[in-house]
Amino acid sequence: MKKLQFGLSGMGRIGKVHLQNVQQHSATVSIKGVYPANIKAKKWVEEQGVNHFYETFEDLVNDPEIDAVIIASPTAFHAEQIILAAQAGKALFAEKPIDLDREKVTKVLQVLQQTHVPFFLGFNRRFDPSIEQIKKNILNGHVGTPEIIKITSRDPAPPPLTYIPSSGGLFLDMAIHDFDMACHLMDQKVTEVYSTASVFGDPNIGKLGDIDTAVTTLTFENGAIAVIDNSRHAAYGYDQRIEVFGSKGLCGMDNHRINQSFLANAKGMHQPVPPNFFIERYAASYAKEMTLFVEHLLHKTKPSVGAIAGLRALDLALAAQQSVAEKKAITVSI
Amino acid sequence: MKKLQFGLSGMGRIGKVHLQNVQQHSATVSIKGVYPANIKAKKWVEEQGVNHFYETFEDLVNDPEIDAVIIASPTAFHAEQIILAAQAGKALFAEKPIDLDREKVTKVLQVLQQTHVPFFLGFNRRFDPSIEQIKKNILNGHVGTPEIIKITSRDPAPPPLTYIPSSGGLFLDMAIHDFDMACHLMDQKVTEVYSTASVFGDPNIGKLGDIDTAVTTLTFENGAIAVIDNSRHAAYGYDQRIEVFGSKGLCGMDNHRINQSFLANAKGMHQPVPPNFFIERYAASYAKEMTLFVEHLLHKTKPSVGAIAGLRALDLALAAQQSVAEKKAITVSI
Amino acid sequence: MKKLQFGLSGMGRIGKVHLQNVQQHSATVSIKGVYPANIKAKKWVEEQGVNHFYETFEDLVNDPEIDAVIIASPTAFHAEQIILAAQAGKALFAEKPIDLDREKVTKVLQVLQQTHVPFFLGFNRRFDPSIEQIKKNILNGHVGTPEIIKITSRDPAPPPLTYIPSSGGLFLDMAIHDFDMACHLMDQKVTEVYSTASVFGDPNIGKLGDIDTAVTTLTFENGAIAVIDNSRHAAYGYDQRIEVFGSKGLCGMDNHRINQSFLANAKGMHQPVPPNFFIERYAASYAKEMTLFVEHLLHKTKPSVGAIAGLRALDLALAAQQSVAEKKAITVSI
Amino acid sequence: MKKLQFGLSGMGRIGKVHLQNVQQHSATVSIKGVYPANIKAKKWVEEQGVNHFYETFEDLVNDPEIDAVIIASPTAFHAEQIILAAQAGKALFAEKPIDLDREKVTKVLQVLQQTHVPFFLGFNRRFDPSIEQIKKNILNGHVGTPEIIKITSRDPAPPPLTYIPSSGGLFLDMAIHDFDMACHLMDQKVTEVYSTASVFGDPNIGKLGDIDTAVTTLTFENGAIAVIDNSRHAAYGYDQRIEVFGSKGLCGMDNHRINQSFLANAKGMHQPVPPNFFIERYAASYAKEMTLFVEHLLHKTKPSVGAIAGLRALDLALAAQQSVAEKKAITVSI
Repeated sequence: MKKLQFGLSGMGRIGKVHLQNVQQHSATVSIKGVYPANIKAKKWVEEQGVNHFYETFEDLVNDPEIDAVIIASPTAFHAEQIILAAQAGKALFAEKPIDLDREKVTKVLQVLQQTHVPFFLGFNRRFDPSIEQIKKNILNGHVGTPEIIKITSRDPAPPPLTYIPSSGGLFLDMAIHDFDMACHLMDQKVTEVYSTASVFGDPNIGKLGDIDTAVTTLTFENGAIAVIDNSRHAAYGYDQRIEVFGSKGLCGMDNHRINQSFLANAKGMHQPVPPNFFIERYAASYAKEMTLFVEHLLHKTKPSVGAIAGLRALDLALAAQQSVAEKKAITVSI
Repeated sequence: MKKLQFGLSGMGRIGKVHLQNVQQHSATVSIKGVYPANIKAKKWVEEQGVNHFYETFEDLVNDPEIDAVIIASPTAFHAEQIILAAQAGKALFAEKPIDLDREKVTKVLQVLQQTHVPFFLGFNRRFDPSIEQIKKNILNGHVGTPEIIKITSRDPAPPPLTYIPSSGGLFLDMAIHDFDMACHLMDQKVTEVYSTASVFGDPNIGKLGDIDTAVTTLTFENGAIAVIDNSRHAAYGYDQRIEVFGSKGLCGMDNHRINQSFLANAKGMHQPVPPNFFIERYAASYAKEMTLFVEHLLHKTKPSVGAIAGLRALDLALAAQQSVAEKKAITVSI
Repeated sequence: MKKLQFGLSGMGRIGKVHLQNVQQHSATVSIKGVYPANIKAKKWVEEQGVNHFYETFEDLVNDPEIDAVIIASPTAFHAEQIILAAQAGKALFAEKPIDLDREKVTKVLQVLQQTHVPFFLGFNRRFDPSIEQIKKNILNGHVGTPEIIKITSRDPAPPPLTYIPSSGGLFLDMAIHDFDMACHLMDQKVTEVYSTASVFGDPNIGKLGDIDTAVTTLTFENGAIAVIDNSRHAAYGYDQRIEVFGSKGLCGMDNHRINQSFLANAKGMHQPVPPNFFIERYAASYAKEMTLFVEHLLHKTKPSVGAIAGLRALDLALAAQQSVAEKKAITVSI
Repeated sequence: MKKLQFGLSGMGRIGKVHLQNVQQHSATVSIKGVYPANIKAKKWVEEQGVNHFYETFEDLVNDPEIDAVIIASPTAFHAEQIILAAQAGKALFAEKPIDLDREKVTKVLQVLQQTHVPFFLGFNRRFDPSIEQIKKNILNGHVGTPEIIKITSRDPAPPPLTYIPSSGGLFLDMAIHDFDMACHLMDQKVTEVYSTASVFGDPNIGKLGDIDTAVTTLTFENGAIAVIDNSRHAAYGYDQRIEVFGSKGLCGMDNHRINQSFLANAKGMHQPVPPNFFIERYAASYAKEMTLFVEHLLHKTKPSVGAIAGLRALDLALAAQQSVAEKKAITVSI
């Protein structure tokens, strides 16, 4: 059988993760080439055994041998590249967010609907083994109907100040993963969004119009409630926890630790911190989403997380922004 | 030295706990007598070595030998009994809430201010060893300024339906402890209260105008945020957890377990449930508050938790009720 | 119904624990009096509401009103007092060990067999809630046939040097509880005992002929193996853990902690130490064994742990001593 | 800089792990080829981008371009291949054990001493992140002098019966890792070895002269004691735990879990099993040892774990075998 040919756009830290994960499927997939050509990471790419570099993104999408394109370029290029690739008939794996602008996202959705290309949006956390287990527990009825969902999502440190203006702010840049998670686990329409937010760390974050601390409450159609708390400065590392409470019990996910060692002394029992970095913490989910993407292409099945999920998470993030700005609960149907 | 003479009003389950805890101070305190006389628990009281029963509450407060009165009668009697005892010059330990009615509570506060009797309000959880440790960690700066406080407080089962109409509802009956806890740990004025609530269990709870599920967000003056989630039906037992997140770290309290056994088999690692009942779970805090009350009397020091704390928690509970009723965030200064 | 009348011999720290635990049964049991009369603890005893003091132990056992005697005197008096009380027809609750001398223990057994008085030996740990759960898991077949039992038993600090000469040494003084635990959980004859031991702390312990560190392996008739490790200086507190491994899984007991608080910071996740003292750690088991003793007397049932268990644990401790002295495995049938 | 050229011998499950780990060093290392040529795994190897297959092991060691040889062939070939490669001047990474026969191991040591080739023995567990942390804690004095070491090492299932006759038995096949671990952590001579062992699972294991359950006690020169317990049938998965107890505290390693999910319900709190397979559990240590091997070659430093460690662990395993056979403690100086 002929192998699938992949092209990759973007060779930053996430692009590299995807390249290595694709190579785990060397039995069925080849990486034909990478765009852009003049990347800093060129040497690294060649060491991985990939030697073809496209001069332009158009060259990549117009290469007739390419079956699928992986988009891990900066957010500002996502929408445009998705549209070009979809119009060229390529299957697509795209990093989130599709765009920070609701109109552009809507435009992307239209193109995807018209072109019918397979599209997988990289909400990788859905494929974390612990989160897959939570979802399984819900579907198997182990906790009954979910009534309260709690998501703790705290970064160890804020992004560079220079990144903040183009980031979309805490809700669109960071909490969007958590909004997707709440929707993924609850599978209900949101009817009300309330957020309260502050700046506790670097005051420049506030001067740039952003926040570093937020608590968001989502009320769902059936009365279920999700609470998401975010911070940009968890001193103890990257804090990623989930709880789903229902009539029959509670399921969830604890933090990982960098290793399973412990030390007990006169001061108490001590255990190591969580992994500090999302790429490390979610290594398994990045690998799993790529495995699923390849399987979807091989078996011509539909990806479970598409562009609609991206729009939904964006809408929740925008409502959260509005709630903070207007200091009130926002009625929605998302 | 002459021993302190205590009189007890109310011999329900909490009254019994207080009686036994007072007896731990037999070196310095005697229980002179108990009101009412015709209680079901009379035999039990006599077995504890207490043989005097007052016919009326007035008999108790007018007994010149009595130094202090412990009020553990039904909520409806609290305000009246506190006022009578205070006017008789007795030191007071009273169960919460002072009353469900804000005006009555204000009246009690006035009497207490006029009479200057020592008054200790039974927000026992403040004296739980784990919660004392949280407070110490905050005061010692171990987590920096608290930015996000999360309180999970879930009962294993709702109260009897017959109790609900006089209970004041979930916020005044149950969450009031959690509101006090948020204030105790944060030590800041609350500026905004937002609650969203549902009925997921017995629909009769809803018919009685109450709820069994609620998530409340408190925003504090300095931008800090507290989130309290409540449920009346935690299948796995009484769930009592706290987290305090600040710039330097996170401190908190995990659930207890009924014992420290474990079982590992092909299905995983299994550990026992939490204690099912608040009297069992907070046994140490009930004992500690009584020890502190006795010490305050012996050393003529002021109790750390007085009637003001009761009013404050009540006001937050009332604001939460209003938020649910009006489906909006309530601006306050509490 | 007339209450049972108890007499207590010995009012050290364990005697006090027993007195308070008996008082929990005030509905069915009265404490008639305490021996000796001139105890330092007299004031404390009177504060507990007990006012009768016997001049001699003979006075106590000859008091015809006394139904049962609790022996918590120093070890050197145990055998003699048990014999006197048994010959006076009193039911007996005795602290372990019966004696450090095998012959004396055998003599006690004879007297108990002749007099048929109810006899409960205070191997309290058997009644710890976690250990009861382990035993239940074994009996219910949850781990299959036990194949490997591991007992960790480490004191936070050695006893005073002055106590060591009369203590019987680490195996008879401390590990004897663990030997009883191994027998209790395994319910098989021991065929081989091997111990290896050292002094790592105060070298004076070695000069007094004792050890502070030991690992003992017991091989049972069916091939099952128990390993007990002991130390006299666990810096992190009193370490009491058990594991039972069998064909179907593993069950066991973790350490308690002084509270359930936690602190996470840049150095990791920190939790409090275990309780430092056996009376604190095993408070529930001391209470439970007294409850059972009272129930045995009320319902005329036979205590589950009698003098034979004391002899068996002593024999294992003596074999462990011999193994260390002779540097070889000892073949036994215990 | 020219890349290092590696040749691999053996393409079973461990050989594949090594191949993939070497490919992580593609910046500095190339895999020149693999022996044998007619392997079942040929397709898999080619998919990894390796296309050269040696007809004989001699072809591999005589290839002048090869700098280093990785030996992951069946145990019976280890000694012979190590000798051939060493005599050809190749640097060596070899899987343990060197051989089951003490004389052959001694011969290998002689050749390695004569040829001075770099030699790294694959006691991979030493490089597990948790175990590295334990070692660090010991070296940093965090637990004081180690006094008691406990190693729990239990396989989820016995090997196929057909493998047992050539395996060397439980001590040489399985416990040898644990003996190495005890030596690695204690860094003291062993003076006494005592083992007691049984067959609790498939009785055919016993008929083949092997055991499936063993507890081994090692006494060290300074009085420290190590206890190793082994089983071939841990129903709950691969159980790998370590504890090091010293005068200042306790450090160690808990089991991993297949994910960090949890489920709490009326029966208790449930968490997933450990990884079931050593390759999964020790994935990080396999990767780390290869990283270190490459670094040793690049920087011409000496591997920390050489052939002497293999001989030492073998000698302890042989002494454990003797102890079981002769039912006595064996005096040694290992």
